[in-house]
Amino acid sequence: MRVDLNCDLGESFGAYVIGGDEEVLPHVTSVNIACGYHAGDHNIMAETVKLAKIHGVNVGAHPGYNDLMGFGRRHIDTTPEDIYHTVLYQIGALHSFCKAYGVEMHHVKPHGALFNKASLDDATAAAIAEAVRDADPSLLLFGLSGSRLIHAGEKAGLAVVQEVFADRSYQPDGTLTPRSHREAVLTDPSEVVERAVRMVKEGRVRAVDGSEIILQADTVCIHGDGKNAAVFAIELKKELEQAGVEIVAAGAVRR
Amino acid sequence: MRVDLNCDLGESFGAYVIGGDEEVLPHVTSVNIACGYHAGDHNIMAETVKLAKIHGVNVGAHPGYNDLMGFGRRHIDTTPEDIYHTVLYQIGALHSFCKAYGVEMHHVKPHGALFNKASLDDATAAAIAEAVRDADPSLLLFGLSGSRLIHAGEKAGLAVVQEVFADRSYQPDGTLTPRSHREAVLTDPSEVVERAVRMVKEGRVRAVDGSEIILQADTVCIHGDGKNAAVFAIELKKELEQAGVEIVAAGAVRR
Amino acid sequence: MRVDLNCDLGESFGAYVIGGDEEVLPHVTSVNIACGYHAGDHNIMAETVKLAKIHGVNVGAHPGYNDLMGFGRRHIDTTPEDIYHTVLYQIGALHSFCKAYGVEMHHVKPHGALFNKASLDDATAAAIAEAVRDADPSLLLFGLSGSRLIHAGEKAGLAVVQEVFADRSYQPDGTLTPRSHREAVLTDPSEVVERAVRMVKEGRVRAVDGSEIILQADTVCIHGDGKNAAVFAIELKKELEQAGVEIVAAGAVRR
Amino acid sequence: MRVDLNCDLGESFGAYVIGGDEEVLPHVTSVNIACGYHAGDHNIMAETVKLAKIHGVNVGAHPGYNDLMGFGRRHIDTTPEDIYHTVLYQIGALHSFCKAYGVEMHHVKPHGALFNKASLDDATAAAIAEAVRDADPSLLLFGLSGSRLIHAGEKAGLAVVQEVFADRSYQPDGTLTPRSHREAVLTDPSEVVERAVRMVKEGRVRAVDGSEIILQADTVCIHGDGKNAAVFAIELKKELEQAGVEIVAAGAVRR
Repeated sequence: MRVDLNCDLGESFGAYVIGGDEEVLPHVTSVNIACGYHAGDHNIMAETVKLAKIHGVNVGAHPGYNDLMGFGRRHIDTTPEDIYHTVLYQIGALHSFCKAYGVEMHHVKPHGALFNKASLDDATAAAIAEAVRDADPSLLLFGLSGSRLIHAGEKAGLAVVQEVFADRSYQPDGTLTPRSHREAVLTDPSEVVERAVRMVKEGRVRAVDGSEIILQADTVCIHGDGKNAAVFAIELKKELEQAGVEIVAAGAVRR
Repeated sequence: MRVDLNCDLGESFGAYVIGGDEEVLPHVTSVNIACGYHAGDHNIMAETVKLAKIHGVNVGAHPGYNDLMGFGRRHIDTTPEDIYHTVLYQIGALHSFCKAYGVEMHHVKPHGALFNKASLDDATAAAIAEAVRDADPSLLLFGLSGSRLIHAGEKAGLAVVQEVFADRSYQPDGTLTPRSHREAVLTDPSEVVERAVRMVKEGRVRAVDGSEIILQADTVCIHGDGKNAAVFAIELKKELEQAGVEIVAAGAVRR
Repeated sequence: MRVDLNCDLGESFGAYVIGGDEEVLPHVTSVNIACGYHAGDHNIMAETVKLAKIHGVNVGAHPGYNDLMGFGRRHIDTTPEDIYHTVLYQIGALHSFCKAYGVEMHHVKPHGALFNKASLDDATAAAIAEAVRDADPSLLLFGLSGSRLIHAGEKAGLAVVQEVFADRSYQPDGTLTPRSHREAVLTDPSEVVERAVRMVKEGRVRAVDGSEIILQADTVCIHGDGKNAAVFAIELKKELEQAGVEIVAAGAVRR
Repeated sequence: MRVDLNCDLGESFGAYVIGGDEEVLPHVTSVNIACGYHAGDHNIMAETVKLAKIHGVNVGAHPGYNDLMGFGRRHIDTTPEDIYHTVLYQIGALHSFCKAYGVEMHHVKPHGALFNKASLDDATAAAIAEAVRDADPSLLLFGLSGSRLIHAGEKAGLAVVQEVFADRSYQPDGTLTPRSHREAVLTDPSEVVERAVRMVKEGRVRAVDGSEIILQADTVCIHGDGKNAAVFAIELKKELEQAGVEIVAAGAVRR
C-alpha cells in the first residue's frame, strides 16, 4: 500500500508571499506549481521549479482561473473552450521553466474554483483533460477522488491520480464543502491525520452529515499555507508509515 | 537572393481587436504571435496558431513586457533575470498551442520596448537570447539588423535572423527612431517599398540625418495593424520579385 | 412624454479601440463611462469625460466586474460586500475626472454581467444601490425596467431611471436574453426602432415567446459599438419625435 | 517643534498580505493608503479606511504606477499626461471609500518609483501636483524634503509636507539611495532613531559619502512592512518626545 503526498506551491506573487514553500517541501513527494493566473509569476515559477529540483519531488502544473485578486477561488462563468486554452497556456508556461532548469513535468492538478467546477461539471472536466492530453499525453492528471475530472481524464486516455483532502470536510456526494462554509476546513491536527490514514487504508471518510463516502486515496493534499503545514506533514507521514503505508511519488506509480 | 517577410500577429485581446490578421497573412512567410503579456490572450493565441497553420506560414513567439495597457511599448525598468523569465514564460505558453494544434515553433522575436532595449543593451539581449536557447536551441532569433540582440543570439549559439523595418526611420547608429518622435513612421507606400527593396538588395538604408547605414535584411517587418497592410505587402512582394529577390520563410534558411 | 437616450462610452483600453464614441455622442442625452475594470483606463476616461463635456451630455459611471479579458460580460461569483466596494471604487475614480475637467456626474449604470446579476439578485442589487447612495445620494441609478435593481435603488432612496433595450430580445420574465443565445441581439434597424417607439409610447414589448411585457421606458440604451450606431440613433430620434416624444436627458427629470 | 509620523498602509492584495497594519497604526499620525495600482484592492482599501478611522489618524492616498507585480518599485517610462491621470484615478477611488466610511482625505503621497521619479523630474512632479490640486486643492502633498515634488506642489498652490526617511540612506544630492543598492536600507534601530531625531531637530542627515544634507522634516516615514515596525515606532516617538518634539498629524498644521 502506497500513497503520494502533494502540496500546492509557488503561490507567491511579486513582493507578496504566500506559503512556507521551503518548510513543506521536504515532506511531500509531488508539488503543484501555480502558473501565473491565480497566483505565481514568472520569477516565482523559476524559483519554485529550482526548489523542487533540489528536493527531488515531482513537479506538476497547477492551473487556475485568471483571477489573481480572487486567488482562483471564485468561479468565473466561461466556456469549455476558454478553459481548454486556459489550461494549455499555463501548462506550456510552466513547461518552459522545467525545460530550462532540467526538470521533468509529471502531472497537472487544477486549482481552486476550477478544480471544484471540474469535479462536478463534465464539460469543464473534459476541457481540462483534453488540454492536458494535447499538451503532453504522458502527464498524470490529479483530480478529486471519484469526481467527473477523474472520469474525464480516463476518457481522454490519461493516467489519473485520485486525490483526497485530509483537512477539508466532505459533502455526502463526495465533493468538498465550499470554503465559504464555516466547517469547510478541519483544524484539529490529530483528527486530520486520523482521517487521512483512514482514507488511505480503508478508502473511506465520514461526510458532514455522518454518512460514509467511498474514495480512493492515490495522493493526499497537504496545504502549504497553514502555519503548521510542515509539522502536520511530518506527523502524517509518521502515522501513515506506522500503518504500513509507503510514501511514494505518484509519478513512480505511473511506470 | 532571398528574404523573409514577417508580421506581428495575434495582438487582439478579449473583446478588443487589433490588426487585420487574416488580410495580411497570405502575404507573409513568418508570423510573430503575441503571448499574453503585451497583447494576445489564450484564446487569441489558439485562433492565431490555427490561422497560421492554414496559411502555412512559420510561427514564432513575440514576447513583450507584461504591460497590456502600454501595449508593450513602454520601457519597464527591470532586471536581466526578470527578462529571462519573462521570455521563457511566453515561449512556453505559445509552445503549448503549437503542440495542441500541430504546428512547429520556428522563431522568437521580442516586441516593442523589449525589442528596442535588446537592440542596445547587452544584458537585456543576453537574457533574451539565453531564454530562447534554454527553451529550445533550434529556435531562430529575430533581431534588429546589427543590434546587440543579434550579437547575443550568436553568442548563445542560436541561428539569428537580421530584421529591417521598411516603414520606420533609422537613427545614424542603426536603431529605430522611437515612436514618440514625429518622423518615426514612414507613411508613403512607394517610399517604403523602395527602401525595403534597397535594404534587401544593397544592404543599405538612409538614416534621418542623411547618413548611410549598412545592414543585412534577412527579413522585412510588415506591420499588420495599418489599414493598408495587405495592399502594401502585395506591392512589396511584387517589387522584390521584380528585383530578383525570392520570398522565402526564414525557417527555410535554417535547414 | 419624454425619454432619455443613453450609450455606453469610453470602453477602449490602451492601444485598443472599441466603439465609435465620437459618432454616437451627438445623438444621445446620457453617457455611461467605463471606469477601468471591465474596460477603459485612466487616459480613456479623461478623454471621454472631455468629449462628453463638449457635447453637453449627462455623464454617468459604468462600473463592471474587474474582468478586462471578459469585457465584464462573464459572471464572477463574489460577495455583495465585494460588489459594494467594486462599485464604490469605480464611481470614485470617474468622479476625479469629472472634477478635474469640470463636469457633474449624474448617474450610475452597471455594466454587462453585473447589470444582469443586479436585475435578478436582491443582494447584488442592494450592494450596487448602497454603493451609489454612499458615494453620492444625488446620483441617479439606471437599471433594467422593473428589475430588482430598480427596487433596490428605490429602497436606498435613490432616484431611479428605468431602462429599456431596443436591440435586445426579452425573456417572458422581463430580463434580457443572454448574449450567449443566438436571438439575443436584434439586427433589423426598422424593427428595433419600432420596438423602441412602442416601449416608450405604450410601455410594452413582445418577449421571445410572444408574450407581452409591461415596462417603463425612462431611457433607451443605444449600443455604441455597432457599425451603424449613429445612423440608428438618428433614425430612432426622428421616429420618437414624430411620435410626439421629447428627447431629454434623464438628469433633467431629476430637477 | 512638531513632527508628523506617516506610514504606508493597505498594501495587501486579495489573499496576499503585506504589512502589519494594525500593529503600526497606533503609533503614527498619518497613513498613506494604496489605491489598487501598485498594491491594495477595493476591499483592502475599505478595510484600511475603516481601520484608520478607528485609530483617528489622518488618511491620505498613496498612488503608484499601475504595476502590481513590481509593487510600484519599477520605473515605467510614460508621459506626464499619463501620470496626471494615474494620480487622478487613484485619488478618486480612495475618495469614495473616505466618503462612504465617513473619513476626510487629508493628503497624497506618491509611492515607490513614482515618488522617486517625482523627486528628480520636474514634469513628473508637476503632473502629480496638478492632479492633486485638480482633485482637491485642500489636499496636502507629501514629498521628499527639498525635492522637485515639493517645488511643484508649491507652484501648484498646494500646502506641502516635507518628508524624511529615517531608515533609508541618502545620496549627496538629497535623494534616497535606490533599493537595488546594498546600503539602501538601514537596519540598526538605534541608528535609525538617532538619525530621525537629528533630522527633525537639526534639519540635517549624513549622506552615504559622509557629506551633510540640509533638509526639513515635517513628517518621518515609518515603514510598516518591517517585522519591528511597531517597536521601532514606539522607540522613535519616545526619543522624539524626550527631545522636546511634539508628534502631531501634518493635517493639523494645515488649519
